[in-house]
Amino acid sequence: MSDPLDRVNAAESFDAVDIIRTKRDHRDLSDDQIEWVVDAYTRGVVAEEQMSALAMAILLNGMTHRETARWTAAMTASGERLDFSTLRAPGGGVRPTADKHSTGGVGDKITLPLAPLVAVFGVAVPQLSGRGLGHTGGTLDKLESIPGWRAALSNDEMMAQLEGVGAVVCAAGAGLAPADRKLYALRDVTGTVESIPLIASSIMSKKIAEGTGSLVLDVKVGSGAFMKDERQARELAETMVALGLDAGVKTVALLTNMSTPLGLTVGNALEVEESIEVLAGGGPEDVVELTVRLAEEMLACAGVHDADPEQALRDGRAMDVWRRMIAAQGGDPDAALPTAQESEVVYAPADGVLVELDAFKVGVAAWRLGAGRARKEDSVQAAAGVRLHAKPGAFVRAGEPLMTLLTDSSDRFGRAKQVLEGAAVIAPAGARPAQRLVIDRVA
Amino acid sequence: MSDPLDRVNAAESFDAVDIIRTKRDHRDLSDDQIEWVVDAYTRGVVAEEQMSALAMAILLNGMTHRETARWTAAMTASGERLDFSTLRAPGGGVRPTADKHSTGGVGDKITLPLAPLVAVFGVAVPQLSGRGLGHTGGTLDKLESIPGWRAALSNDEMMAQLEGVGAVVCAAGAGLAPADRKLYALRDVTGTVESIPLIASSIMSKKIAEGTGSLVLDVKVGSGAFMKDERQARELAETMVALGLDAGVKTVALLTNMSTPLGLTVGNALEVEESIEVLAGGGPEDVVELTVRLAEEMLACAGVHDADPEQALRDGRAMDVWRRMIAAQGGDPDAALPTAQESEVVYAPADGVLVELDAFKVGVAAWRLGAGRARKEDSVQAAAGVRLHAKPGAFVRAGEPLMTLLTDSSDRFGRAKQVLEGAAVIAPAGARPAQRLVIDRVA
Repeated sequence: MSDPLDRVNAAESFDAVDIIRTKRDHRDLSDDQIEWVVDAYTRGVVAEEQMSALAMAILLNGMTHRETARWTAAMTASGERLDFSTLRAPGGGVRPTADKHSTGGVGDKITLPLAPLVAVFGVAVPQLSGRGLGHTGGTLDKLESIPGWRAALSNDEMMAQLEGVGAVVCAAGAGLAPADRKLYALRDVTGTVESIPLIASSIMSKKIAEGTGSLVLDVKVGSGAFMKDERQARELAETMVALGLDAGVKTVALLTNMSTPLGLTVGNALEVEESIEVLAGGGPEDVVELTVRLAEEMLACAGVHDADPEQALRDGRAMDVWRRMIAAQGGDPDAALPTAQESEVVYAPADGVLVELDAFKVGVAAWRLGAGRARKEDSVQAAAGVRLHAKPGAFVRAGEPLMTLLTDSSDRFGRAKQVLEGAAVIAPAGARPAQRLVIDRVA
Repeated sequence: MSDPLDRVNAAESFDAVDIIRTKRDHRDLSDDQIEWVVDAYTRGVVAEEQMSALAMAILLNGMTHRETARWTAAMTASGERLDFSTLRAPGGGVRPTADKHSTGGVGDKITLPLAPLVAVFGVAVPQLSGRGLGHTGGTLDKLESIPGWRAALSNDEMMAQLEGVGAVVCAAGAGLAPADRKLYALRDVTGTVESIPLIASSIMSKKIAEGTGSLVLDVKVGSGAFMKDERQARELAETMVALGLDAGVKTVALLTNMSTPLGLTVGNALEVEESIEVLAGGGPEDVVELTVRLAEEMLACAGVHDADPEQALRDGRAMDVWRRMIAAQGGDPDAALPTAQESEVVYAPADGVLVELDAFKVGVAAWRLGAGRARKEDSVQAAAGVRLHAKPGAFVRAGEPLMTLLTDSSDRFGRAKQVLEGAAVIAPAGARPAQRLVIDRVA
């Protein structure tokens, strides 16, 4: 305890304990307090245990819109900020940029067909992505199942690819929002993840630092999503849209259903394979629907209103950009994808309508089969995962395959099947679940 | 993020994040969760940033009586536990033990006359004390102003002194409630001090580990106390009394006034000097009143009902024990106490009744003069402090001395006088503040 009337270190403008107490006692943090605490945390002056106490106080007592906006701005300002304003369109003039961010779902491979699809229409897509952690996969992990493909690009390489190809999916550099990087790791081990102001500012600080002109958010709702209920998902979407607009980024959010996996595949190479089907004009209906809908939103935000993304999937233009995008990062678009060494089929136990196929349980099963990682340092199996043979609404017969589990390590089947217990619910014929994919739009 | 269905490290029974989330989400912690988290924190398995998030969740969401009792028991069990059951009375038979704990006040030197006074009646007083931190002084700092006196005793030395002298005031060993030692330091830097369950368990775990048979708590209320309002102080007192009884310690609490300093001195040697006046049958009325009242409570708890502590102050028996107690720890009871090199007098600005003399401001002034420390590593000045010349209720004349500031470093006067602005409130003659010293008793 230092002198309560003179707590402040002469070299620092604020004292961490005062700031923690302010939020703890339900008072609003000032702009200056927020700027100082985020900066001082990044510099290591505010200790991890102080930030975790503050994060818990924020989680329990909330932040106002002003506080969240300032927190986001402070995290954005903690590192470098990319600038795409010099990016030229092939025919001259400034090329608009658009990005998409998903809050994470099971089987969510949408970025893979979406980025090249949007680029078809002259909008550059700078998609800085992460790796998977937990039961939702990571876009970089998926693309790394393509032989030769590399996630790490320099800023110059990224800029060149955006000009040449129009789309890039790569790893976010360490220079982007370092405050968020540090805070994200801390929140994970201190039970302070589930705070809407902290989630929203984490996502938006990175996206704002990334420099995109417009942003479409895919906020997932349901068992396989981070937000299990619609009210919370809507609040997160509204918070993020407001933060984007505050920072001058045209931002729109869709609330989409994540009670069941997207498409018929969950796992790295499996999802690349399905994405290629979509780019070839085929693929599962739900993946196509969401890809097209998100492309329309991104294009509209970027000022392109006469585009027909469905047509660009059918006529091969999106596939052309995909092939160039993969090749530009060292990948071979024609190489065979890895396949799993072991497989085991899960059969339907009864006749009836598959009314539920729980996204969370399928996600954890794929993770346990090797598709995901438990710790940052772990590697993933490219070929592991789950292939679904039926989606909710389908009629199934007892003994028919429901899904195939794939892995390179047969000792993983046991724990995967354990979590799948109760994942599939089969009801007497006649029942038909109503499943809207896009629940709402927040703008 | 580890597998949510399988978070637990095989070697540990629980996961820290699950426990943090339980309290964060307003659910009660189980006995097993509490035992594990306190033990694992002591072992370093639960990280500081995890415990600080949990402490903030406890501060904001509370703990039930059962949780607080179990938390206290777990902290007690984290280290050694002293046992006085073998302590013999001079005439044979088991000698009862009684201890007193004050939540900290300005000018609170009561332990000094109280411990020998209670020992006069055959009750052993094992008073394990701390050093001052912040604006309230520490008992050990006060006694260390006596030439030769040492605070550190081995358990055997303490036991021998309790048998031979009947009273000991010494430093609590590092083996007592190490979980609390760690948590106390963490709470100080993370804004998680002001939680009644955490304060109560911190105090009581040490006192229970110390092994006293009965305990009287002096819970201070007012500007100079940790608890500024009576409702909170009462809640703390009730919580601690219940924790003591749960652990088999006869426990009583008094709520006492700390809006103005106790006695006429604030500072280490100054308070020893005043304590000796009380032991000589004199001293300020309020110090005598509280000493006698606390002695009566301690004696009653220990089963001694026919004692007359006031008489033992007047007839020199308490002084005899004091002298032996000081000498047993190497101190010279006849040595001159250090005196300050510099002094400055603060004068009354007007005629009238001194209606208020703010304990907190006087405490901070004494601290700034050198009587207290800002960091654990700092040393204190034995002679620094404040000598009061008037107490609330007294009539004062403009230009008369109100108090004398004492220090060895004259550069300290400025900041001490700064905090004293407004500390003394003088009203037109006739006004007379009602100041009850003992506000209530909780048993």
